[in-house]
Amino acid sequence: MDLKQDLSHYIELINKELQKYMDIYPRKNKTLIDAMNYSLMAGGKRLRPVLALASYNIFNHEIEEVLPYACGIEMIHTYSLIHDDLPAMDNDDYRRGKLTNHKVFGEGTAILAGDGLLNYAFEIMLQDAVKRKNVSPYVESMRVIAEAAGINGMIGGQIVDLESENKTIDGDTLEYIHLKKTAALITAPLKIGAIIGQASEVDIENMEFIGRNLGLAFQIRDDILDIIGENDKLGKNVGSDENKQKSTYPSIHGLEYSINKVKELTLSANEKLMKYNNASFLYELSNYLINREF
Amino acid sequence: MDLKQDLSHYIELINKELQKYMDIYPRKNKTLIDAMNYSLMAGGKRLRPVLALASYNIFNHEIEEVLPYACGIEMIHTYSLIHDDLPAMDNDDYRRGKLTNHKVFGEGTAILAGDGLLNYAFEIMLQDAVKRKNVSPYVESMRVIAEAAGINGMIGGQIVDLESENKTIDGDTLEYIHLKKTAALITAPLKIGAIIGQASEVDIENMEFIGRNLGLAFQIRDDILDIIGENDKLGKNVGSDENKQKSTYPSIHGLEYSINKVKELTLSANEKLMKYNNASFLYELSNYLINREF
Repeated sequence: MDLKQDLSHYIELINKELQKYMDIYPRKNKTLIDAMNYSLMAGGKRLRPVLALASYNIFNHEIEEVLPYACGIEMIHTYSLIHDDLPAMDNDDYRRGKLTNHKVFGEGTAILAGDGLLNYAFEIMLQDAVKRKNVSPYVESMRVIAEAAGINGMIGGQIVDLESENKTIDGDTLEYIHLKKTAALITAPLKIGAIIGQASEVDIENMEFIGRNLGLAFQIRDDILDIIGENDKLGKNVGSDENKQKSTYPSIHGLEYSINKVKELTLSANEKLMKYNNASFLYELSNYLINREF
Repeated sequence: MDLKQDLSHYIELINKELQKYMDIYPRKNKTLIDAMNYSLMAGGKRLRPVLALASYNIFNHEIEEVLPYACGIEMIHTYSLIHDDLPAMDNDDYRRGKLTNHKVFGEGTAILAGDGLLNYAFEIMLQDAVKRKNVSPYVESMRVIAEAAGINGMIGGQIVDLESENKTIDGDTLEYIHLKKTAALITAPLKIGAIIGQASEVDIENMEFIGRNLGLAFQIRDDILDIIGENDKLGKNVGSDENKQKSTYPSIHGLEYSINKVKELTLSANEKLMKYNNASFLYELSNYLINREF
């Protein structure tokens, strides 16, 4: 199998589905849809929805079953970026090499575009769920997503991140931020892929373990790239965390330790993945994520 | 029956349930919960969740069935107020006679508190739904709520409202704003009360009709009170819409026409309500809303 080919195939499926959801232009609120569309279609990596599809494919074959929930997760991820970039939060002008949402549409519209994407995520998932005969796995998946995105998940990580600016924080607090702000919404797609794919309890737990490890590895790699990466590849200013005096994994634990930690977490995830016959895509993807440069 | 006594009973049920959901203080993110709690427990009228309980009671008796969804709607309503008050939106310093969320906790935390409440609304509803045996009415209710709160509902109204500041708008646009920004989230509780109460299709449609009328009447009454009300009762500055050069129902149609419109909408809702045996609370409530002074 070819990682890049499979990845392109997944991303194409996701982009088509997302575009379908955005091809609704109500008479009166075009600005809002434009602002939502701007960030949702800004060329993100689609890592989270790809993970949902790949996890589902280990256990089942009707990929349309998981697609709306994969797209819901991507909408939630995108809303979090829009709000995170706002002047009252990280105050970033660029994201993925493009002007941030509020820089193009203004702060008020950017806040509403974020709200709109979070709400729309649940709306499209529920629109799908009401049509399902065996609805339980879908309801449980939405619960998992809400929990991962919420006050004990991503938003919980955001608030601690916000409070930690211009402060020295300890390793535990940073790990909390990374686990909640990043790993939670990387674990969720792997988990719901298994739930909707009708996997066993043990398999669902395995996917959760893999998600936690890959999510943390992914964020530490991000911290590393902020130091050693190139501006144009990352699409944001290298050293931007340092400029904001934000603690990062390397600033607390050192660069070498951080690089080893990424390897260790990935290895541990891959050990679990090796138990599955159809997990070669995820296996290769996790190896690719260790070495990614953007 | 006694309107005030029944209303107090409903409000007590709702406040207890809301407090239960908020009595979770995770180790690291107390600030976020405090900010969410501040606005959620700021002494709102609880009109929306009361409508859900009252509508449910027309058709059924196990009120606990609808309570989490009533609370979810109140959380969504509260988040919309927090974001609406932000400097980039309406820039209000006071709400219900208290400092607005961002005035107390800062803008970044207020944005996250709003996000947190919107997400938590779906989280608590889904936590309930996964435990239900006959889950369909609950999934359909969440879909109805997501639609009413979303880009074709409340948020759709917000964006047109935001774009209409310092502009002259026509009657149709104002009606769109009122229907979407206000009536949608007054219709939703009446509708889901009927859905979870196992009402017939016709009854669900009747509740939708009643909600649209009462919601529009409620907002027009709000516009009227902004002109004739007293500062301290309203908890915000009278004339504040005028100061922001916002178009209101009376500024477009005149005060007398507006007062008559409120009566007409309420009468039409009450005609439908009279068909039901157990609707006297809603009937009296809608008459009370016409004449309310805050």
